[in-house]
Amino acid sequence: MIRAFGGSGTGHAKGVLGMAMTTVNNGVNVQALLDAREALKGAPQAAKFTWRASCKWRNGTHSQAKVKGFFGLGEEQQHKTETTFEADHPEIFASEDKGITPIEYVLVGLASCLTAGVAAVAQNRGIQLRSVESQLEGKMDIRGILGIDSDVRNGYDDIKVTFKIDADASKPEIEAIVAQSQKRSAVYDVITNPVNVTVEVV
Amino acid sequence: MIRAFGGSGTGHAKGVLGMAMTTVNNGVNVQALLDAREALKGAPQAAKFTWRASCKWRNGTHSQAKVKGFFGLGEEQQHKTETTFEADHPEIFASEDKGITPIEYVLVGLASCLTAGVAAVAQNRGIQLRSVESQLEGKMDIRGILGIDSDVRNGYDDIKVTFKIDADASKPEIEAIVAQSQKRSAVYDVITNPVNVTVEVV
Repeated sequence: MIRAFGGSGTGHAKGVLGMAMTTVNNGVNVQALLDAREALKGAPQAAKFTWRASCKWRNGTHSQAKVKGFFGLGEEQQHKTETTFEADHPEIFASEDKGITPIEYVLVGLASCLTAGVAAVAQNRGIQLRSVESQLEGKMDIRGILGIDSDVRNGYDDIKVTFKIDADASKPEIEAIVAQSQKRSAVYDVITNPVNVTVEVV
Repeated sequence: MIRAFGGSGTGHAKGVLGMAMTTVNNGVNVQALLDAREALKGAPQAAKFTWRASCKWRNGTHSQAKVKGFFGLGEEQQHKTETTFEADHPEIFASEDKGITPIEYVLVGLASCLTAGVAAVAQNRGIQLRSVESQLEGKMDIRGILGIDSDVRNGYDDIKVTFKIDADASKPEIEAIVAQSQKRSAVYDVITNPVNVTVEVV
């Protein structure tokens, strides 16, 4: 059983002569991820994860979602704490704005997924990051959700992500890190490609 | 300029003889939404929305996203408060679990979008809801994000949403409400269909 991806090393190292070297430390344990890659090559069943959320309607368009447990590495797992998220529609939609709009959660997920990827890829490439900031914009024509025009889609027409990164690297190196992050991003994949969703009532 | 979708009526009504009638009240101002639909038919420019999030890398795979302003109905809008969201990878990925995993935010968005839709559609159909609960599961093979097998996608293979709804309606009526919510859900559309995402470094 693979219980976790490894210890707490984060890229500090000593040189061959035992002298402390200045090494890159973005706080990502890349060695653990590389070890996990090797371990999971021979244990594909352990790589099957199930992520979960539960949601309760409160009133109007306001609901509350909770995230705590998930399944992976062959067994039930738990986040350290259960997190609760409020969602609602804004006041201009005649709602009470008791949380962000559901469609905005998609941007939160995309931003954080690409950002984690940037940190991991930079660590793997030996590039020290100083700051990583991003702005996301998702354009949507609400004539879709209001059912005004069936040619207008309900969701985003397009999403633009703009990164501003300060790192010990050239612009092309930074761009290559961001490109690699996109290439391995779970949320980027979910948004840019179709996912099968089944909805049931019990 | 359309400033908002309407007042605060939520479906209470008086009968033709002035007697109070028992009416359905799910807390959704459907009349405002119907009025907005009429208004936006003649003002497609006002229907163009831009939703936004910003994100800052903290350390390792931990980042912090904020949501406050958006653009719609022809002008800048603000949520009542700015909301901050923490994202990280779990401890079994050798991370610190300082927030939920980015891919879990997608489930939060989907759950809350479908739930708001259920409330709005039920209101429009004159069906009183008592409770709406849902459980979401997204299956993902992490050999994708780890780059073990290029045939394995990075994101969800599939997502299952299970609703449990207590309402003054038959099972087929409840199923029809959920189906209509899916049909008009922005997040459901984003997940089940491709969205163009552009990523830039400035």
